[in-house]
Amino acid sequence: MRKRILAEGNEAVGWGAISAGCHCFFGYPISPQNEIIEFLAREMPKRGGIFVQSQCETGTINHLYGAAAAGVRAMTSTSSPGWGLMQEGMSNLVAARLPCVVVLIQRVGPGVQRLEHAQMDYNSATGGGGGGGYKNIVLAPDSVQETHDLIQLAFHLADKYRNPVVVLSDGLMGHVVEPLEIKILDFGPLPEKDWAVARRGQHKDGKHRAIASSYNPLEGETYVSYLCDMRTRYEAMESEVRYEEYKTDDAELILVAYGYCARVSKEAVNAARAEGLKAGLLRPITLWPFPNQAVCDKAEKGCKFLAVEDSLGLMVKDVKIAVDGKSEVYLVDVTFRHNPSESGVIMPGRVLEEIRRLL
Amino acid sequence: MRKRILAEGNEAVGWGAISAGCHCFFGYPISPQNEIIEFLAREMPKRGGIFVQSQCETGTINHLYGAAAAGVRAMTSTSSPGWGLMQEGMSNLVAARLPCVVVLIQRVGPGVQRLEHAQMDYNSATGGGGGGGYKNIVLAPDSVQETHDLIQLAFHLADKYRNPVVVLSDGLMGHVVEPLEIKILDFGPLPEKDWAVARRGQHKDGKHRAIASSYNPLEGETYVSYLCDMRTRYEAMESEVRYEEYKTDDAELILVAYGYCARVSKEAVNAARAEGLKAGLLRPITLWPFPNQAVCDKAEKGCKFLAVEDSLGLMVKDVKIAVDGKSEVYLVDVTFRHNPSESGVIMPGRVLEEIRRLL
Amino acid sequence: MRKRILAEGNEAVGWGAISAGCHCFFGYPISPQNEIIEFLAREMPKRGGIFVQSQCETGTINHLYGAAAAGVRAMTSTSSPGWGLMQEGMSNLVAARLPCVVVLIQRVGPGVQRLEHAQMDYNSATGGGGGGGYKNIVLAPDSVQETHDLIQLAFHLADKYRNPVVVLSDGLMGHVVEPLEIKILDFGPLPEKDWAVARRGQHKDGKHRAIASSYNPLEGETYVSYLCDMRTRYEAMESEVRYEEYKTDDAELILVAYGYCARVSKEAVNAARAEGLKAGLLRPITLWPFPNQAVCDKAEKGCKFLAVEDSLGLMVKDVKIAVDGKSEVYLVDVTFRHNPSESGVIMPGRVLEEIRRLL
Amino acid sequence: MRKRILAEGNEAVGWGAISAGCHCFFGYPISPQNEIIEFLAREMPKRGGIFVQSQCETGTINHLYGAAAAGVRAMTSTSSPGWGLMQEGMSNLVAARLPCVVVLIQRVGPGVQRLEHAQMDYNSATGGGGGGGYKNIVLAPDSVQETHDLIQLAFHLADKYRNPVVVLSDGLMGHVVEPLEIKILDFGPLPEKDWAVARRGQHKDGKHRAIASSYNPLEGETYVSYLCDMRTRYEAMESEVRYEEYKTDDAELILVAYGYCARVSKEAVNAARAEGLKAGLLRPITLWPFPNQAVCDKAEKGCKFLAVEDSLGLMVKDVKIAVDGKSEVYLVDVTFRHNPSESGVIMPGRVLEEIRRLL
Repeated sequence: MRKRILAEGNEAVGWGAISAGCHCFFGYPISPQNEIIEFLAREMPKRGGIFVQSQCETGTINHLYGAAAAGVRAMTSTSSPGWGLMQEGMSNLVAARLPCVVVLIQRVGPGVQRLEHAQMDYNSATGGGGGGGYKNIVLAPDSVQETHDLIQLAFHLADKYRNPVVVLSDGLMGHVVEPLEIKILDFGPLPEKDWAVARRGQHKDGKHRAIASSYNPLEGETYVSYLCDMRTRYEAMESEVRYEEYKTDDAELILVAYGYCARVSKEAVNAARAEGLKAGLLRPITLWPFPNQAVCDKAEKGCKFLAVEDSLGLMVKDVKIAVDGKSEVYLVDVTFRHNPSESGVIMPGRVLEEIRRLL
Repeated sequence: MRKRILAEGNEAVGWGAISAGCHCFFGYPISPQNEIIEFLAREMPKRGGIFVQSQCETGTINHLYGAAAAGVRAMTSTSSPGWGLMQEGMSNLVAARLPCVVVLIQRVGPGVQRLEHAQMDYNSATGGGGGGGYKNIVLAPDSVQETHDLIQLAFHLADKYRNPVVVLSDGLMGHVVEPLEIKILDFGPLPEKDWAVARRGQHKDGKHRAIASSYNPLEGETYVSYLCDMRTRYEAMESEVRYEEYKTDDAELILVAYGYCARVSKEAVNAARAEGLKAGLLRPITLWPFPNQAVCDKAEKGCKFLAVEDSLGLMVKDVKIAVDGKSEVYLVDVTFRHNPSESGVIMPGRVLEEIRRLL
Repeated sequence: MRKRILAEGNEAVGWGAISAGCHCFFGYPISPQNEIIEFLAREMPKRGGIFVQSQCETGTINHLYGAAAAGVRAMTSTSSPGWGLMQEGMSNLVAARLPCVVVLIQRVGPGVQRLEHAQMDYNSATGGGGGGGYKNIVLAPDSVQETHDLIQLAFHLADKYRNPVVVLSDGLMGHVVEPLEIKILDFGPLPEKDWAVARRGQHKDGKHRAIASSYNPLEGETYVSYLCDMRTRYEAMESEVRYEEYKTDDAELILVAYGYCARVSKEAVNAARAEGLKAGLLRPITLWPFPNQAVCDKAEKGCKFLAVEDSLGLMVKDVKIAVDGKSEVYLVDVTFRHNPSESGVIMPGRVLEEIRRLL
Repeated sequence: MRKRILAEGNEAVGWGAISAGCHCFFGYPISPQNEIIEFLAREMPKRGGIFVQSQCETGTINHLYGAAAAGVRAMTSTSSPGWGLMQEGMSNLVAARLPCVVVLIQRVGPGVQRLEHAQMDYNSATGGGGGGGYKNIVLAPDSVQETHDLIQLAFHLADKYRNPVVVLSDGLMGHVVEPLEIKILDFGPLPEKDWAVARRGQHKDGKHRAIASSYNPLEGETYVSYLCDMRTRYEAMESEVRYEEYKTDDAELILVAYGYCARVSKEAVNAARAEGLKAGLLRPITLWPFPNQAVCDKAEKGCKFLAVEDSLGLMVKDVKIAVDGKSEVYLVDVTFRHNPSESGVIMPGRVLEEIRRLL
């Protein structure tokens, strides 16, 4: 199946799930991700899939636990306040080693606020929320097409590492409309889900399976061996680093940004280049694992860095760790919005001003 | 009131709350912090205070919202799985600028696990959990006496900055028994709670108050001016850095640790010194704001650093940011436990081995 | 569509719903009605229908409210403890004049108990539960075929009177296996659902609809006019009396029983007749409206009555009201079980003994 | 303690609880009973008692379960929609044989409606709600003084029979203001609560206790022996019939009414007597057990009956059963309100008209 349509980012989330063979979707309405729910409520049943609107976000994340335990591909999506409610569930999903996809279309925080744009959940998405001590891959698309593609990759990586994967986007990326080629991506073979709860006779050995909510003493695991298994999987996940470089070859200042801020930064880079300023963009596609080596390499060459993020400064910590004192790190944050109203965003012009100031 | 008793850490939390004039405590049972609830269930009513056992942790954190809005000193306590459930509420408390104290006696994660010791909620406690974009002061005691004292400080700082304060401890610190001098600490004057919801006539202007759940357009606030107010308060909070240095004057290797790991590390430092190894300890008492300057100063003098924490590595990120490439940073983590059983902890011996290896 | 199969009562509930064109089913697992949920989870999606397993019974009854408000045929099923949780929702459904079907496969009470057979929800099913002051038709099948047929009738009557209809069965009837002819029953035309919430343009006048949760002052209703509308509909519903008479023509003692106790009573009547004892059975198919006139007519002819019900005596009150002192009324109740264990039921032998004692 | 004050009915509920030594009160706000909650929130802590505002009515009824299991006197209060939510809990309380008091200040139904006066929960209060098959004593006061006194009696009867007792009042009775003599009533000795869950050493045998949620196989109970125990207790409770007769000696028409309708009926009787009409009032103080014998005796003497109740006719069924065809039974119901507005009630004038019509 391959077709080209015009679609907004949230619709691309839905198409990506369908392309990935997602069998169950659980959702609860919250802006700015309602279009995902509307799309999948309509499209899942047509394809023999399951759509359930849960009674709250603590419901969706626990439904996800059940579906993932049964070995089917399952997904939920939410925005920032719902993400807060899912933190205990996220922790439980990792603890039980259950592969699944959680899509987070960020809106502003803290609290419920109105519908301002923002990127404020970087910390809990990449570093583990309440009931912590865990890791999960985080993918950040910056176009409608990439949204569709990364959703598919997310399902693949979840199954590959038996761990939840978070796709971290934002309200602006969710609503931008662009051409989308719908196609099924092939990321290669995956291990069989021999661990999944299934009907009698479905596993080769004819035996039942149970999902341990953490380590399994019956199989000889101790808490430390369980942690070591986790660490081994985390270390393997660290090989999944993905990023895009844009005009970085000769850059003296490298912007680091994801999601809508990457789009804004790319435009700012272009404008800077037009003025002869040697700016470039390094866009992490995986926020965890973060492209530490790529950043470090550039820092060693003397590049300065400018993190651009619509928060008070979260990703910038990872940039600093990667740079490790080898160069300077600056920040364009939420207070650079062009407009103090709800519709305010960080505009390319303000980023360009900062580029000029630094070069 | 001043008296000396023998008490465990959790009891000291309770005494600290009483010394601070805490009026409302909301709790829900979860090990290893049940002794706090038992203590305050018994002691609060005797003193005219309110104790409510809520129906779940999402209940306690929202009760806290109500009590804090009324301008009284209020507290909840929980352990890691409950902390996961409180993430949305924490975000709402900061958004509404409500002073209160949340005590987190960490246990192991991710998920529910058994009752292993751990320090795995550093990331969400110091960097904002789900529904993010916020900051709160985090205090970390390493003795029964300090637990009692920091609880009082927590209430003071919450009121001073109109923001929640987290006291981050762990199951070992909660159960260690030591002498405790109960006394009321005076941290100086505080602003009047003129913003609190109160009975008619209780405010000087005779008017009612309402708590805005975020920015208040009626008072001319925009989202950006609200964020700037938050940033201003965060910047002011950054002046509240507290830490303890132990044998760091001539140290070539500085351990960084909090909570029970600080106790373990101090013992390891003593053992190292007995062998002539120049080790020291820098113990953050505030985890946020982190003692960046103190760490940086030592790094500039050529000290190496060894973070000791019972997790897969969370605080170590802050150490790295503070060191900023000026020196080397190493880690003793959860996999260094002396014992693969539930009762495993990081023991001084293993830390000493690491000190020997690095010096 | 017409086909003959062997089916148990619970499966017949599912087939009845499908035959009736039920579009949405909401369920939550509880014995002895889980087979309904399993059946509809499998069969609804195949037919373009919606199956949702809610998070609890308060969830299912409120989902039902939403679906009924949208004008589609919707159903839930539960057993006695779940029925307790649905009482507020039932009251709200009647108040909002929403047609829907609730299937109650009774198990023992009070409380949760084990899985004993029983008929203990007669009072709340026929007389209105908590938040009372309402009425709903109650249908009671005594065979697999009738279960299938009455489910269809229930949907018809719900739409006809714009009111919930309860189908009251029990665990024994739910699990008995008998031949079943699946066929769509035609009960005649129904009013259009012009009141239902629908997409713009779906109603002839092009206007939106809203469901008033009770009386609608905007349409000139007062509480009393609303009550009178209710009473008018209740009086119309009273014409829907249905019952079966079995060997009552010359009977001197008439048993009154529904559900499994009707089956038991029929057998007892046959045994009594074999002994020359003139017993008969009057089986209410509608428990509300109760067949008062039929009972009264027999009482006036001098028949005595023996209520047989697996409770401490609930339906017997309605028998007494109908008899109105014109004859004698006796009771075989739960304490007549043949067996003090969980599997105890009222057996024909014990009923026969009582028939012998009375004739 | 004895003092005379002016109080409204809801306040009298609170004073009654205090006079009865109620130790725990659990409430959730709902009109028209909020004054009970406000009173006890203020007064309980002063007396060493516990007040908890739960998170919902399902919370209060389950809190009550816990407190009653511990053997202390405990109470909750609510209005009709909350009563709907408590039905499962009520069933569980009876099943576990837990003494407690539930106060129901009725408002209109079905559903939430506005705040109209009504008496619509007679059926579920006296006959068992969802998850049925149980009985509980129901007391109905018709004055402020009697409210205070019956609350105390309710606690006594609950402890005497180890069963919940419901005090059924209404919004009008809750808000009427009258003189109240506060005094502790002595109803005689009670059995020790030897079954209650208590601290080690608190029971004479030094053993722990557990509350079985229904029958207790460990103590040799079967479901049938458990039901027989229940029936034995129910039969004993039937001896607790209480009622008031007013001018019934020579009455040809006897009104039957409780709560506010009893007050209205008494006035109507007085007006009828002034016209020479021989009307009287039989006021059940216990709605269950209903004063069957008293009604029956009057019926045998040829008295006609007129039930007056602010519903579509609930208590009238019990009148009919008691009369048992020996005389005629009429009904003044909710549609007799003097006023089609929210504030409508059944007024003495309309009752008088009906008396004139019948005599």
